[in-house]
Amino acid sequence: MLTNPRSDRVKSVRALSRRSVRSRTGQFLAEGPQAVREAVRFAPEQVRDIYVTAEAAERHADLLAAARDAKLWVHEVTPEVLAAMCDAGHPQGLMAVCRWARLALDDALGALPPDAVVCVLAHVRDPGNAGTVIRGADAAGADLVVVSDASVDVLGPKVVRSTVGSLWHLPVVTEVPIQTILEALRGRGVRLFAADGAGHTLLPYADLDGPHAWVMGNEAWGLDAQVRDACDDVVRVPIHGHAESLNLAMAATLCLYASAEARLRRPRGP
Amino acid sequence: MLTNPRSDRVKSVRALSRRSVRSRTGQFLAEGPQAVREAVRFAPEQVRDIYVTAEAAERHADLLAAARDAKLWVHEVTPEVLAAMCDAGHPQGLMAVCRWARLALDDALGALPPDAVVCVLAHVRDPGNAGTVIRGADAAGADLVVVSDASVDVLGPKVVRSTVGSLWHLPVVTEVPIQTILEALRGRGVRLFAADGAGHTLLPYADLDGPHAWVMGNEAWGLDAQVRDACDDVVRVPIHGHAESLNLAMAATLCLYASAEARLRRPRGP
Repeated sequence: MLTNPRSDRVKSVRALSRRSVRSRTGQFLAEGPQAVREAVRFAPEQVRDIYVTAEAAERHADLLAAARDAKLWVHEVTPEVLAAMCDAGHPQGLMAVCRWARLALDDALGALPPDAVVCVLAHVRDPGNAGTVIRGADAAGADLVVVSDASVDVLGPKVVRSTVGSLWHLPVVTEVPIQTILEALRGRGVRLFAADGAGHTLLPYADLDGPHAWVMGNEAWGLDAQVRDACDDVVRVPIHGHAESLNLAMAATLCLYASAEARLRRPRGP
Repeated sequence: MLTNPRSDRVKSVRALSRRSVRSRTGQFLAEGPQAVREAVRFAPEQVRDIYVTAEAAERHADLLAAARDAKLWVHEVTPEVLAAMCDAGHPQGLMAVCRWARLALDDALGALPPDAVVCVLAHVRDPGNAGTVIRGADAAGADLVVVSDASVDVLGPKVVRSTVGSLWHLPVVTEVPIQTILEALRGRGVRLFAADGAGHTLLPYADLDGPHAWVMGNEAWGLDAQVRDACDDVVRVPIHGHAESLNLAMAATLCLYASAEARLRRPRGP
Protein backbone atom coordinates (compact mmCIF):
# COMPACT_ATOMS: atom_id res chain seq x y z
CA MET A 1 0.00 0.00 0.00
CA LEU A 2 1.47 3.34 -1.09
CA THR A 3 0.66 5.96 1.54
CA ASN A 4 3.07 8.86 1.01
CA PRO A 5 1.74 11.50 -1.42
CA ARG A 6 5.19 13.11 -1.45
CA SER A 7 7.17 10.06 -2.52
CA ASP A 8 9.36 10.03 -5.62
CA ARG A 9 7.07 7.54 -7.31
CA VAL A 10 4.07 9.79 -6.82
CA LYS A 11 6.01 12.75 -8.18
CA SER A 12 7.19 10.85 -11.23
CA VAL A 13 3.65 9.69 -12.03
CA ARG A 14 2.28 13.18 -11.53
CA ALA A 15 4.98 14.57 -13.83
CA LEU A 16 3.35 12.69 -16.72
CA SER A 17 0.76 15.46 -16.81
CA ARG A 18 3.52 17.44 -18.55
CA ARG A 19 4.12 16.98 -22.26
CA SER A 20 7.92 17.20 -21.97
CA VAL A 21 7.97 14.34 -19.48
CA ARG A 22 5.65 12.23 -21.65
CA SER A 23 7.91 12.82 -24.68
CA ARG A 24 11.03 11.90 -22.75
CA THR A 25 9.64 8.78 -21.08
CA GLY A 26 7.14 7.57 -23.70
CA GLN A 27 4.66 7.13 -20.86
CA PHE A 28 1.28 8.70 -20.16
CA LEU A 29 -1.68 8.55 -17.79
CA ALA A 30 -4.99 6.74 -18.15
CA GLU A 31 -7.35 8.11 -15.50
CA GLY A 32 -10.59 6.59 -14.30
CA PRO A 33 -12.13 3.12 -14.58
CA GLN A 34 -13.30 3.42 -18.18
CA ALA A 35 -9.90 4.37 -19.59
CA VAL A 36 -8.07 1.77 -17.49
CA ARG A 37 -10.58 -0.94 -18.41
CA GLU A 38 -10.19 -0.31 -22.15
CA ALA A 39 -6.40 -0.17 -21.89
CA VAL A 40 -6.35 -3.52 -20.06
CA ARG A 41 -8.79 -5.08 -22.54
CA PHE A 42 -7.33 -3.77 -25.79
CA ALA A 43 -3.65 -3.08 -25.08
CA PRO A 44 -2.49 -4.82 -21.88
CA GLU A 45 1.08 -4.81 -23.21
CA GLN A 46 0.98 -1.00 -23.00
CA VAL A 47 -0.09 -0.88 -19.36
CA ARG A 48 2.82 -0.45 -16.99
CA ASP A 49 1.33 0.13 -13.54
CA ILE A 50 -2.21 0.34 -12.18
CA TYR A 51 -2.92 2.41 -9.07
CA VAL A 52 -6.14 1.81 -7.18
CA THR A 53 -7.72 2.74 -3.84
CA ALA A 54 -9.12 0.00 -1.59
CA GLU A 55 -12.62 1.24 -2.20
CA ALA A 56 -12.24 1.24 -6.01
CA ALA A 57 -10.53 -2.17 -5.90
CA GLU A 58 -13.71 -3.60 -4.44
CA ARG A 59 -15.94 -1.81 -6.96
CA HIS A 60 -13.85 -2.90 -9.95
CA ALA A 61 -12.82 -6.40 -8.86
CA ASP A 62 -13.43 -7.82 -12.36
CA LEU A 63 -11.18 -5.23 -13.97
CA LEU A 64 -8.38 -5.88 -11.48
CA ALA A 65 -8.72 -9.64 -11.91
CA ALA A 66 -8.29 -9.17 -15.67
CA ALA A 67 -5.25 -6.98 -15.00
CA ARG A 68 -3.67 -9.60 -12.74
CA ASP A 69 -4.44 -12.32 -15.30
CA ALA A 70 -2.50 -10.23 -17.80
CA LYS A 71 0.37 -10.11 -15.26
CA LEU A 72 0.08 -6.35 -14.80
CA TRP A 73 1.33 -4.57 -11.70
CA VAL A 74 -1.55 -3.44 -9.47
CA HIS A 75 -0.63 -1.12 -6.58
CA GLU A 76 -3.02 -0.25 -3.81
CA VAL A 77 -2.80 3.43 -2.80
CA THR A 78 -4.52 5.80 -0.40
CA PRO A 79 -7.00 8.32 -1.86
CA GLU A 80 -4.45 11.06 -1.04
CA VAL A 81 -1.75 9.34 -3.10
CA LEU A 82 -4.10 8.86 -6.03
CA ALA A 83 -5.19 12.51 -5.92
CA ALA A 84 -1.54 13.58 -5.85
CA MET A 85 -0.74 11.40 -8.87
CA CYS A 86 -3.48 12.40 -11.24
CA ASP A 87 -4.35 15.39 -13.36
CA ALA A 88 -8.13 15.40 -13.12
CA GLY A 89 -8.61 15.34 -9.36
CA HIS A 90 -11.36 12.73 -9.70
CA PRO A 91 -10.05 9.52 -11.30
CA GLN A 92 -12.73 7.58 -9.35
CA GLY A 93 -10.12 5.66 -7.43
CA LEU A 94 -8.28 4.18 -10.39
CA MET A 95 -5.56 5.12 -12.84
CA ALA A 96 -2.77 3.56 -14.87
CA VAL A 97 0.60 4.55 -16.25
CA CYS A 98 0.79 3.40 -19.86
CA ARG A 99 3.55 3.17 -22.44
CA TRP A 100 2.80 4.60 -25.84
CA ALA A 101 3.46 2.01 -28.55
CA ARG A 102 4.54 4.41 -31.25
CA LEU A 103 3.16 3.29 -34.59
CA ALA A 104 4.99 4.28 -37.79
CA LEU A 105 2.83 5.91 -40.44
CA ASP A 106 4.01 3.54 -43.18
CA ASP A 107 3.23 0.48 -41.10
CA ALA A 108 -0.23 1.83 -40.29
CA LEU A 109 -0.92 2.61 -43.94
CA GLY A 110 0.33 -0.82 -45.01
CA ALA A 111 -2.24 -2.43 -42.73
CA LEU A 112 -5.23 -0.50 -44.06
CA PRO A 113 -8.09 -2.41 -45.72
CA PRO A 114 -8.86 -1.61 -49.39
CA ASP A 115 -11.89 0.55 -48.53
CA ALA A 116 -10.16 2.35 -45.65
CA VAL A 117 -11.58 5.39 -43.88
CA VAL A 118 -8.93 7.53 -42.20
CA CYS A 119 -9.27 10.57 -39.94
CA VAL A 120 -6.46 13.16 -39.98
CA LEU A 121 -6.16 15.84 -37.30
CA ALA A 122 -4.20 18.57 -39.06
CA HIS A 123 -4.31 21.39 -36.48
CA VAL A 124 -6.69 20.40 -33.73
CA ARG A 125 -5.56 22.27 -30.61
CA ASP A 126 -8.33 21.72 -28.07
CA PRO A 127 -7.80 18.55 -25.98
CA GLY A 128 -11.52 17.86 -25.54
CA ASN A 129 -12.13 18.20 -29.29
CA ALA A 130 -9.23 15.94 -30.19
CA GLY A 131 -10.42 13.25 -27.80
CA THR A 132 -14.00 13.50 -28.96
CA VAL A 133 -12.94 13.23 -32.62
CA ILE A 134 -10.99 10.03 -31.82
CA ARG A 135 -14.07 8.68 -29.99
CA GLY A 136 -16.23 9.59 -32.99
CA ALA A 137 -13.76 7.95 -35.41
CA ASP A 138 -13.91 4.79 -33.31
CA ALA A 139 -17.72 4.80 -33.19
CA ALA A 140 -17.92 5.37 -36.95
CA GLY A 141 -15.60 2.41 -37.55
CA ALA A 142 -12.71 4.41 -39.02
CA ASP A 143 -9.58 2.35 -39.65
CA LEU A 144 -6.93 4.84 -38.58
CA VAL A 145 -6.44 8.23 -36.92
CA VAL A 146 -3.35 10.27 -37.83
CA VAL A 147 -2.48 13.27 -35.68
CA SER A 148 -0.08 15.89 -37.02
CA ASP A 149 2.77 17.31 -35.00
CA ALA A 150 0.97 20.68 -35.06
CA SER A 151 -1.99 19.25 -33.14
CA VAL A 152 -2.47 18.85 -29.41
CA ASP A 153 -0.56 15.96 -27.77
CA VAL A 154 -3.09 13.11 -27.76
CA LEU A 155 -1.38 11.56 -24.74
CA GLY A 156 -2.34 14.53 -22.55
CA PRO A 157 -4.65 13.53 -19.71
CA LYS A 158 -7.59 15.58 -21.00
CA VAL A 159 -7.41 14.07 -24.50
CA VAL A 160 -7.12 10.56 -23.07
CA ARG A 161 -10.16 11.18 -20.85
CA SER A 162 -12.19 12.56 -23.77
CA THR A 163 -11.51 9.49 -25.91
CA VAL A 164 -13.26 7.38 -23.22
CA GLY A 165 -11.03 4.43 -24.11
CA SER A 166 -11.13 4.83 -27.90
CA LEU A 167 -7.40 5.64 -27.87
CA TRP A 168 -6.86 1.88 -27.48
CA HIS A 169 -9.56 0.79 -29.93
CA LEU A 170 -8.05 1.80 -33.25
CA PRO A 171 -4.57 2.59 -34.56
CA VAL A 172 -3.48 6.16 -33.79
CA VAL A 173 -0.33 7.59 -35.40
CA THR A 174 1.06 10.75 -33.84
CA GLU A 175 3.65 13.49 -34.34
CA VAL A 176 3.96 13.47 -38.14
CA PRO A 177 4.15 16.72 -40.17
CA ILE A 178 0.88 17.29 -42.00
CA GLN A 179 2.42 17.42 -45.49
CA THR A 180 4.14 14.07 -44.86
CA ILE A 181 0.78 12.62 -43.80
CA LEU A 182 -1.01 13.89 -46.90
CA GLU A 183 1.72 12.70 -49.28
CA ALA A 184 1.87 9.26 -47.68
CA LEU A 185 -1.91 8.85 -47.88
CA ARG A 186 -2.00 10.01 -51.47
CA GLY A 187 0.85 7.62 -52.30
CA ARG A 188 -1.32 4.77 -51.05
CA GLY A 189 -4.25 5.81 -53.24
CA VAL A 190 -6.25 7.28 -50.36
CA ARG A 191 -8.29 10.27 -51.53
CA LEU A 192 -8.13 13.35 -49.32
CA PHE A 193 -11.23 15.29 -48.23
CA ALA A 194 -10.68 18.55 -46.39
CA ALA A 195 -13.58 19.14 -43.99
CA ASP A 196 -14.10 22.88 -44.03
CA GLY A 197 -17.05 25.23 -43.59
CA ALA A 198 -15.85 27.02 -46.74
CA GLY A 199 -15.99 23.87 -48.88
CA HIS A 200 -17.99 23.87 -52.11
CA THR A 201 -19.07 20.19 -51.99
CA LEU A 202 -21.88 19.45 -49.55
CA LEU A 203 -21.35 16.31 -47.46
CA PRO A 204 -24.35 14.40 -48.89
CA TYR A 205 -22.88 14.91 -52.39
CA ALA A 206 -19.29 13.92 -51.59
CA ASP A 207 -18.15 10.83 -53.47
CA LEU A 208 -17.15 8.56 -50.60
CA ASP A 209 -16.46 5.51 -52.72
CA GLY A 210 -13.07 3.88 -52.20
CA PRO A 211 -10.38 4.58 -49.62
CA HIS A 212 -10.42 8.15 -48.32
CA ALA A 213 -9.33 10.37 -45.46
CA TRP A 214 -11.06 13.25 -43.67
CA VAL A 215 -8.68 16.08 -42.88
CA MET A 216 -9.85 18.17 -39.90
CA GLY A 217 -8.41 21.65 -39.30
CA ASN A 218 -8.27 24.04 -36.42
CA GLU A 219 -11.27 24.88 -34.18
CA ALA A 220 -10.96 28.59 -34.83
CA TRP A 221 -9.51 29.13 -38.28
CA GLY A 222 -10.25 25.84 -40.07
CA LEU A 223 -7.66 24.48 -42.49
CA ASP A 224 -4.57 26.22 -43.87
CA ALA A 225 -4.91 27.05 -47.56
CA GLN A 226 -1.87 24.87 -48.21
CA VAL A 227 -3.52 21.85 -46.62
CA ARG A 228 -6.86 22.52 -48.35
CA ASP A 229 -5.10 22.80 -51.70
CA ALA A 230 -3.34 19.47 -51.15
CA CYS A 231 -6.70 17.71 -50.80
CA ASP A 232 -8.81 16.27 -53.62
CA ASP A 233 -11.99 17.99 -52.49
CA VAL A 234 -13.14 20.44 -49.82
CA VAL A 235 -16.37 19.29 -48.21
CA ARG A 236 -18.70 21.09 -45.85
CA VAL A 237 -21.49 19.82 -43.66
CA PRO A 238 -24.66 21.62 -44.77
CA ILE A 239 -26.01 24.15 -42.28
CA HIS A 240 -29.80 24.15 -42.57
CA GLY A 241 -30.62 26.72 -39.86
CA HIS A 242 -28.96 29.94 -38.75
CA ALA A 243 -25.97 28.44 -36.93
CA GLU A 244 -22.70 29.81 -38.22
CA SER A 245 -20.95 26.47 -37.90
CA LEU A 246 -20.80 23.16 -36.10
CA ASN A 247 -18.08 22.45 -33.62
CA LEU A 248 -15.16 20.45 -34.91
CA ALA A 249 -16.01 17.18 -33.17
CA MET A 250 -19.58 17.29 -34.45
CA ALA A 251 -18.48 18.04 -38.01
CA ALA A 252 -15.89 15.24 -37.88
CA THR A 253 -18.44 12.76 -36.54
CA LEU A 254 -20.96 13.62 -39.25
CA CYS A 255 -18.30 13.20 -41.97
CA LEU A 256 -17.03 9.92 -40.56
CA TYR A 257 -20.55 8.52 -40.22
CA ALA A 258 -21.28 9.49 -43.81
CA SER A 259 -18.25 7.40 -44.76
CA ALA A 260 -19.46 4.49 -42.64
CA GLU A 261 -22.86 4.59 -44.34
CA ALA A 262 -21.33 4.83 -47.81
CA ARG A 263 -19.23 1.77 -47.01
CA LEU A 264 -22.29 -0.19 -45.84
CA ARG A 265 -24.26 0.72 -48.95
CA ARG A 266 -21.43 -0.33 -51.27
CA PRO A 267 -21.49 -3.86 -52.67
CA ARG A 268 -18.33 -5.61 -51.49
CA GLY A 269 -16.13 -6.84 -54.33
CA PRO A 270 -14.63 -10.33 -54.44
CA MET B 1 -18.90 54.91 -18.11
CA LEU B 2 -19.48 52.46 -15.25
CA THR B 3 -16.31 52.22 -13.18
CA ASN B 4 -17.30 50.74 -9.81
CA PRO B 5 -17.11 46.93 -9.74
CA ARG B 6 -18.92 46.99 -6.36
CA SER B 7 -21.97 48.96 -7.46
CA ASP B 8 -25.50 47.61 -7.03
CA ARG B 9 -25.91 47.37 -10.78
CA VAL B 10 -22.81 45.19 -11.12
CA LYS B 11 -24.02 42.99 -8.29
CA SER B 12 -27.48 42.58 -9.79
CA VAL B 13 -26.02 41.63 -13.20
CA ARG B 14 -23.60 39.20 -11.61
CA ALA B 15 -26.46 37.65 -9.62
CA LEU B 16 -27.92 36.40 -12.92
CA SER B 17 -25.31 33.64 -12.83
CA ARG B 18 -27.65 32.09 -10.23
CA ARG B 19 -30.67 30.10 -11.38
CA SER B 20 -32.93 31.42 -8.61
CA VAL B 21 -32.28 35.01 -9.67
CA ARG B 22 -32.89 34.18 -13.33
CA SER B 23 -36.19 32.51 -12.43
CA ARG B 24 -37.32 35.45 -10.33
CA THR B 25 -36.32 38.18 -12.80
CA GLY B 26 -36.79 36.39 -16.13
CA GLN B 27 -33.38 37.76 -17.15
CA PHE B 28 -30.13 36.06 -18.11
CA LEU B 29 -26.63 36.76 -19.42
CA ALA B 30 -25.28 36.62 -22.95
CA GLU B 31 -21.48 36.70 -22.73
CA GLY B 32 -19.04 37.44 -25.52
CA PRO B 33 -19.36 39.04 -28.97
CA GLN B 34 -20.88 36.04 -30.72
CA ALA B 35 -23.75 35.60 -28.26
CA VAL B 36 -24.47 39.35 -28.10
CA ARG B 37 -24.33 39.68 -31.89
CA GLU B 38 -26.83 36.87 -32.45
CA ALA B 39 -29.15 38.23 -29.73
CA VAL B 40 -29.10 41.70 -31.34
CA ARG B 41 -29.65 40.26 -34.82
CA PHE B 42 -32.33 37.70 -34.05
CA ALA B 43 -34.09 38.93 -30.91
CA PRO B 44 -33.33 42.61 -30.23
CA GLU B 45 -36.59 42.90 -28.28
CA GLN B 46 -35.10 40.48 -25.75
CA VAL B 47 -31.92 42.49 -25.16
CA ARG B 48 -32.17 44.75 -22.14
CA ASP B 49 -28.69 46.19 -21.61
CA ILE B 50 -25.36 45.80 -23.38
CA TYR B 51 -22.12 46.27 -21.44
CA VAL B 52 -18.92 46.88 -23.37
CA THR B 53 -15.34 47.97 -22.69
CA ALA B 54 -13.84 50.85 -24.70
CA GLU B 55 -11.48 48.44 -26.43
CA ALA B 56 -14.26 46.02 -27.44
CA ALA B 57 -16.47 48.91 -28.53
CA GLU B 58 -13.88 49.78 -31.13
CA ARG B 59 -13.45 46.19 -32.26
CA HIS B 60 -17.21 45.58 -32.57
CA ALA B 61 -18.35 48.98 -33.87
CA ASP B 62 -20.76 47.39 -36.38
CA LEU B 63 -22.43 45.33 -33.68
CA LEU B 64 -22.88 48.35 -31.42
CA ALA B 65 -24.20 50.45 -34.31
CA ALA B 66 -26.80 47.74 -34.94
CA ALA B 67 -27.65 47.74 -31.23
CA ARG B 68 -28.10 51.52 -31.18
CA ASP B 69 -30.21 51.35 -34.36
CA ALA B 70 -32.44 48.91 -32.49
CA LYS B 71 -32.66 51.48 -29.65
CA LEU B 72 -30.89 49.23 -27.19
CA TRP B 73 -29.04 50.53 -24.14
CA VAL B 74 -25.29 50.33 -24.57
CA HIS B 75 -23.20 51.04 -21.46
CA GLU B 76 -19.47 51.52 -21.53
CA VAL B 77 -17.71 49.84 -18.61
CA THR B 78 -14.17 49.31 -17.37
CA PRO B 79 -12.63 45.84 -17.82
CA GLU B 80 -12.88 45.41 -14.02
CA VAL B 81 -16.62 46.08 -14.06
CA LEU B 82 -17.14 43.62 -16.92
CA ALA B 83 -15.12 40.93 -15.16
CA ALA B 84 -17.16 41.47 -11.99
CA MET B 85 -20.43 41.16 -13.93
CA CYS B 86 -19.82 38.00 -15.88
CA ASP B 87 -19.65 34.32 -15.14
CA ALA B 88 -16.93 33.21 -17.56
CA GLY B 89 -14.17 35.64 -16.68
CA HIS B 90 -13.41 36.22 -20.39
CA PRO B 91 -16.42 37.67 -22.20
CA GLN B 92 -14.00 39.40 -24.63
CA GLY B 93 -15.13 42.85 -23.53
CA LEU B 94 -18.82 42.43 -24.28
CA MET B 95 -21.94 41.06 -22.64
CA ALA B 96 -25.67 41.66 -22.50
CA VAL B 97 -28.49 41.21 -20.05
CA CYS B 98 -31.41 39.61 -21.89
CA ARG B 99 -35.03 38.96 -21.05
CA TRP B 100 -36.31 35.47 -21.71
CA ALA B 101 -39.42 35.61 -23.89
CA ARG B 102 -41.14 32.58 -22.45
CA LEU B 103 -42.81 30.61 -25.22
CA ALA B 104 -45.83 28.44 -24.38
CA LEU B 105 -45.60 24.85 -25.61
CA ASP B 106 -49.01 24.98 -27.30
CA ASP B 107 -48.13 28.15 -29.19
CA ALA B 108 -44.84 26.66 -30.33
CA LEU B 109 -46.54 23.46 -31.48
CA GLY B 110 -49.25 25.44 -33.28
CA ALA B 111 -46.56 27.20 -35.33
CA LEU B 112 -44.81 24.00 -36.48
CA PRO B 113 -44.66 23.23 -40.21
CA PRO B 114 -46.31 19.99 -41.41
CA ASP B 115 -42.99 18.13 -41.69
CA ALA B 116 -41.63 19.41 -38.39
CA VAL B 117 -38.48 18.10 -36.75
CA VAL B 118 -38.40 18.68 -32.98
CA CYS B 119 -35.64 18.06 -30.43
CA VAL B 120 -36.67 17.24 -26.85
CA LEU B 121 -34.19 17.36 -23.97
CA ALA B 122 -35.73 15.02 -21.42
CA HIS B 123 -33.02 14.84 -18.75
CA VAL B 124 -29.91 16.56 -20.10
CA ARG B 125 -27.98 17.78 -17.07
CA ASP B 126 -24.62 18.92 -18.44
CA PRO B 127 -24.64 22.58 -19.52
CA GLY B 128 -22.11 22.08 -22.33
CA ASN B 129 -24.07 19.15 -23.74
CA ALA B 130 -27.37 21.03 -23.60
CA GLY B 131 -25.89 24.02 -25.40
CA THR B 132 -24.18 21.87 -28.02
CA VAL B 133 -27.43 19.97 -28.70
CA ILE B 134 -29.26 23.28 -29.26
CA ARG B 135 -26.46 24.37 -31.62
CA GLY B 136 -26.71 21.03 -33.46
CA ALA B 137 -30.51 21.33 -33.69
CA ASP B 138 -30.08 24.79 -35.21
CA ALA B 139 -27.46 23.59 -37.71
CA ALA B 140 -29.64 20.63 -38.70
CA GLY B 141 -32.57 22.96 -39.32
CA ALA B 142 -34.81 21.62 -36.54
CA ASP B 143 -37.99 23.62 -36.02
CA LEU B 144 -38.21 23.57 -32.24
CA VAL B 145 -36.31 22.57 -29.11
CA VAL B 146 -38.27 21.64 -25.99
CA VAL B 147 -36.42 21.38 -22.69
CA SER B 148 -38.03 19.54 -19.77
CA ASP B 149 -38.10 20.91 -16.24
CA ALA B 150 -35.80 18.02 -15.23
CA SER B 151 -33.04 19.26 -17.54
CA VAL B 152 -30.39 21.87 -16.88
CA ASP B 153 -31.52 25.53 -17.00
CA VAL B 154 -30.79 26.59 -20.57
CA LEU B 155 -30.45 30.20 -19.47
CA GLY B 156 -27.36 29.38 -17.40
CA PRO B 157 -24.24 31.17 -18.69
CA LYS B 158 -22.47 27.97 -19.71
CA VAL B 159 -25.41 26.69 -21.75
CA VAL B 160 -25.84 30.07 -23.43
CA ARG B 161 -22.12 30.12 -24.31
CA SER B 162 -22.25 26.58 -25.70
CA THR B 163 -25.17 27.42 -28.00
CA VAL B 164 -22.92 30.03 -29.70
CA GLY B 165 -25.99 32.14 -30.49
CA SER B 166 -28.31 29.30 -31.53
CA LEU B 167 -30.49 30.02 -28.49
CA TRP B 168 -31.87 32.97 -30.51
CA HIS B 169 -32.07 31.14 -33.85
CA LEU B 170 -34.94 28.76 -33.27
CA PRO B 171 -37.86 28.53 -30.84
CA VAL B 172 -36.89 27.02 -27.48
CA VAL B 173 -39.57 26.05 -24.96
CA THR B 174 -38.39 25.46 -21.39
CA GLU B 175 -39.53 24.17 -18.02
CA VAL B 176 -42.28 21.74 -19.07
CA PRO B 177 -42.67 18.29 -17.44
CA ILE B 178 -41.52 15.60 -19.84
CA GLN B 179 -44.82 13.70 -19.87
CA THR B 180 -46.67 16.92 -20.75
CA ILE B 181 -44.21 17.47 -23.62
CA LEU B 182 -44.66 13.96 -24.99
CA GLU B 183 -48.47 14.07 -24.74
CA ALA B 184 -48.65 17.47 -26.42
CA LEU B 185 -46.42 16.35 -29.28
CA ARG B 186 -48.37 13.17 -29.75
CA GLY B 187 -51.62 15.15 -29.69
CA ARG B 188 -50.29 17.15 -32.65
CA GLY B 189 -49.45 14.01 -34.62
CA VAL B 190 -45.71 14.31 -34.03
CA ARG B 191 -44.13 10.85 -33.80
CA LEU B 192 -41.73 10.32 -30.91
CA PHE B 193 -38.30 8.74 -31.32
CA ALA B 194 -36.35 7.97 -28.18
CA ALA B 195 -32.62 8.21 -28.94
CA ASP B 196 -31.04 5.52 -26.81
CA GLY B 197 -28.02 3.24 -27.07
CA ALA B 198 -30.33 0.37 -26.11
CA GLY B 199 -32.70 0.99 -29.02
CA HIS B 200 -33.53 -1.83 -31.43
CA THR B 201 -33.97 0.34 -34.54
CA LEU B 202 -30.71 1.52 -36.12
CA LEU B 203 -30.72 5.17 -37.17
CA PRO B 204 -30.34 4.50 -40.92
CA TYR B 205 -33.47 2.33 -40.77
CA ALA B 206 -35.65 4.71 -38.74
CA ASP B 207 -38.71 5.88 -40.66
CA LEU B 208 -38.20 9.65 -40.54
CA ASP B 209 -41.11 10.50 -42.81
CA GLY B 210 -43.56 13.07 -41.47
CA PRO B 211 -43.39 15.23 -38.35
CA HIS B 212 -41.30 13.69 -35.58
CA ALA B 213 -39.37 14.48 -32.42
CA TRP B 214 -36.05 13.18 -31.09
CA VAL B 215 -36.15 12.62 -27.34
CA MET B 216 -32.69 12.84 -25.73
CA GLY B 217 -32.08 11.42 -22.26
CA ASN B 218 -29.44 11.80 -19.62
CA GLU B 219 -25.68 11.72 -20.30
CA ALA B 220 -25.06 8.93 -17.82
CA TRP B 221 -28.15 6.76 -17.64
CA GLY B 222 -29.96 7.48 -20.93
CA LEU B 223 -33.75 7.65 -20.91
CA ASP B 224 -36.15 6.61 -18.16
CA ALA B 225 -38.10 3.46 -19.04
CA GLN B 226 -41.28 5.51 -18.67
CA VAL B 227 -40.14 8.02 -21.29
CA ARG B 228 -38.86 5.30 -23.63
CA ASP B 229 -42.18 3.47 -23.37
CA ALA B 230 -44.09 6.63 -24.23
CA CYS B 231 -42.21 6.92 -27.54
CA ASP B 232 -43.19 5.30 -30.84
CA ASP B 233 -39.74 3.84 -31.44
CA VAL B 234 -36.37 3.60 -29.70
CA VAL B 235 -33.53 4.36 -32.10
CA ARG B 236 -29.80 3.96 -31.68
CA VAL B 237 -26.91 5.34 -33.66
CA PRO B 238 -24.94 2.33 -34.97
CA ILE B 239 -21.53 1.85 -33.35
CA HIS B 240 -19.22 0.40 -35.98
CA GLY B 241 -16.02 0.22 -33.92
CA HIS B 242 -15.30 -0.63 -30.28
CA ALA B 243 -16.57 2.59 -28.70
CA GLU B 244 -19.15 1.91 -26.03
CA SER B 245 -21.21 4.93 -26.99
CA LEU B 246 -21.22 8.38 -28.50
CA ASN B 247 -21.61 11.42 -26.33
CA LEU B 248 -25.07 12.88 -26.12
CA ALA B 249 -24.44 15.92 -28.30
CA MET B 250 -22.88 13.82 -31.06
CA ALA B 251 -25.73 11.30 -30.99
CA ALA B 252 -28.30 14.10 -31.08
CA THR B 253 -26.55 15.81 -33.98
CA LEU B 254 -26.39 12.58 -36.00
CA CYS B 255 -30.11 11.93 -35.39
CA LEU B 256 -31.13 15.49 -36.27
CA TYR B 257 -29.03 15.48 -39.44
CA ALA B 258 -30.61 12.17 -40.46
CA SER B 259 -33.97 13.95 -40.14
CA ALA B 260 -32.72 16.88 -42.19
CA GLU B 261 -31.56 14.57 -44.96
CA ALA B 262 -34.82 12.59 -44.92
CA ARG B 263 -36.70 15.87 -45.29
CA LEU B 264 -34.56 16.93 -48.25
CA ARG B 265 -35.04 13.59 -50.01
CA ARG B 266 -38.82 13.69 -49.57
CA PRO B 267 -40.91 15.07 -52.43
CA ARG B 268 -42.84 18.06 -51.10
CA GLY B 269 -46.61 17.66 -51.40
CA PRO B 270 -48.90 20.42 -52.64
